[in-house]
Amino acid sequence: MTAPLDGITVLDLTHVLAGPFATATLGDLGAHVIKVERPGTGDDTRAFPPFKGEESAYFAGLNHGKLSIALDLKAGADRAIFERLLARADVILENYRPGTMEKLGYGWDTLSARFPRLIYGAVSGFGHTGPEAGKPAYDMVVQARGGVMSITGEEGGPPVRVGASIGDIVAGMYLVQGVLAALLRRDRDGRGAKVDISMLDAQLAIMEHAVAITSVSGNPPGPTGARHPTITPFSTYRAADGFFVIAAGNDALFTKLCAALGLDDLPADPRFASNAARCENVHLLKRLIEAVTLDRPRAHWIAALEAAGVPTGQVQNMAEVLTDPQLLARHMVTEVPARPGGAAFTAAGNPIKMTGLADPAPRGPAPTLDGDRAAVLDWLDRD
Amino acid sequence: MTAPLDGITVLDLTHVLAGPFATATLGDLGAHVIKVERPGTGDDTRAFPPFKGEESAYFAGLNHGKLSIALDLKAGADRAIFERLLARADVILENYRPGTMEKLGYGWDTLSARFPRLIYGAVSGFGHTGPEAGKPAYDMVVQARGGVMSITGEEGGPPVRVGASIGDIVAGMYLVQGVLAALLRRDRDGRGAKVDISMLDAQLAIMEHAVAITSVSGNPPGPTGARHPTITPFSTYRAADGFFVIAAGNDALFTKLCAALGLDDLPADPRFASNAARCENVHLLKRLIEAVTLDRPRAHWIAALEAAGVPTGQVQNMAEVLTDPQLLARHMVTEVPARPGGAAFTAAGNPIKMTGLADPAPRGPAPTLDGDRAAVLDWLDRD
Repeated sequence: MTAPLDGITVLDLTHVLAGPFATATLGDLGAHVIKVERPGTGDDTRAFPPFKGEESAYFAGLNHGKLSIALDLKAGADRAIFERLLARADVILENYRPGTMEKLGYGWDTLSARFPRLIYGAVSGFGHTGPEAGKPAYDMVVQARGGVMSITGEEGGPPVRVGASIGDIVAGMYLVQGVLAALLRRDRDGRGAKVDISMLDAQLAIMEHAVAITSVSGNPPGPTGARHPTITPFSTYRAADGFFVIAAGNDALFTKLCAALGLDDLPADPRFASNAARCENVHLLKRLIEAVTLDRPRAHWIAALEAAGVPTGQVQNMAEVLTDPQLLARHMVTEVPARPGGAAFTAAGNPIKMTGLADPAPRGPAPTLDGDRAAVLDWLDRD
Repeated sequence: MTAPLDGITVLDLTHVLAGPFATATLGDLGAHVIKVERPGTGDDTRAFPPFKGEESAYFAGLNHGKLSIALDLKAGADRAIFERLLARADVILENYRPGTMEKLGYGWDTLSARFPRLIYGAVSGFGHTGPEAGKPAYDMVVQARGGVMSITGEEGGPPVRVGASIGDIVAGMYLVQGVLAALLRRDRDGRGAKVDISMLDAQLAIMEHAVAITSVSGNPPGPTGARHPTITPFSTYRAADGFFVIAAGNDALFTKLCAALGLDDLPADPRFASNAARCENVHLLKRLIEAVTLDRPRAHWIAALEAAGVPTGQVQNMAEVLTDPQLLARHMVTEVPARPGGAAFTAAGNPIKMTGLADPAPRGPAPTLDGDRAAVLDWLDRD
């Protein structure tokens, strides 16, 4: 069985995060990804810390296994190479500011006329349509504007940023979905498509619960710290040595939790007898639970709750995450191999586990800028 | 041009969030989604607030356009219907605890032997392999354990939950990617596949920057409030009437920002002359910026910074998000139509904008429990 995207060539003009995150996934699924970089400096993230020697770990984590060729898309000779690549590619992806590709003479209308099977995917801050198409944006701008910051942070406190760059990442994931869907349709009708992903759109798309509350009640929710806004107990709690989570999503789980904590009177107490009552008395309930849990370490409570069948887990820092036995067993902490004379890096593995896709996926090293020029040109010369 | 998943039938055994979020996307891409629910109560989210009348807005936002049939998978007559559905389906998705499908006699090995073209997608807390396969999990457990909580919150403060349920949602998005990739490969080789998504795996997969920092330095990063950990100025700032974001990702943008704020001396000041220097003096710089911005409302500063080409935007609450002109222009705030006698709901639109996919996508109402039984049986009887 071959990898799902075996034989698919992706011409990757993207830089920084949303686009490279998308093409990393396409690469993990088996695509042949050729990164087309700006001569001289290449992808901005080559200069992003942290480094090993002169190589960026951030760049390596997002670009392992891709090939790199540096092309000046305003210069004749490089444009000729680029157009030969276009003729061989199945997919081209870019995350320039809208309008940039048109200025280069490679807008969707032009490309689709010349290469009718080509799939063109773009990810931008606000999309290619609407009154603000063309404005610049970064992750944090769309996290702020899309609403997630307004419901993240301490209760009553200022908005905080989601630590992971979900403004970029979720948009990159929708780009992958759109490209895969377009490839599927092309199998039937032989025609390419344009996929136009807006980072702001993608942020709204993940706000499920907040959309429902706001549209029904008219009252936008605020941040609720570590607790779920409408389920109790569903939050972090302090143990002797740090925080852990209790996620008791229904009455049966609450009863099991209380038995495990020795709080047997609580399930019959009218203040805690239903989820609605527990939500009303959430602060009192937290204190009653922590009065018990503060006495012993997290591992004790996690073992006790797991034995009782109550969803739980410790709040892990990233050093703990990277040594988590379950994640190691799932090949989710992988090595990006070194180039000769270079450094090896640690990166997240491929979370799409599927039949016929090697796991751990075979990954190449991260490319040096223009390091695969000869290989790419050679590939163009072959049938 | 038809929708990309036109003609694809998805048998959807999922409930609550990760699975239904995935099948909503597949439906938006044109798939025929048949929701198979537990008789009596159906999907748990039918009972989740907020409500209009007796209908859950939360359920409607995730399940519009799907059909519903209630089947008891332990009862002979319903199993017979289910197996006729399996014979017609392209994809079956489930988010039970691992092992549940095997107990019902519908594990992957059994299904793939009987229906070799079937694609089987599962999303679970920890995946179908590894020492903790089979343990229960909720969104918050994997947010905690996967590391995102450890880098989200106030600097020096306790971990907070990401307001959107990204533990479920990101896993659901990877499930969509895996299913689409499996459909693509099936076009070539005619064979189905199992896709096994772990919510915990998916959390690690989005931790790009924190993985790089931790693996290179050995020091796991902590929360940094609203600011980016390694880019300055890249944070929220207070205006007279609330918070807005400034995202000046490089020296050129910093110089433009300073000009727009009347802080012309700062770019040459050695304390702020490079990103590294700005990161070292981040707290001082924030005060110098806010000493200017506190005087006037957000709209003033956003207009001034946009004119200067500096990425900016206000921190919007969800009521502001749902009336944002750019999101409205992109059809990202859509109506889920009412069933006769029922209520209409507001939901997020489809962020995958692509050639040949109607936008706004034609959406049906959310199904009543078992409300499409006759239509589904009738469809089974047709060729």
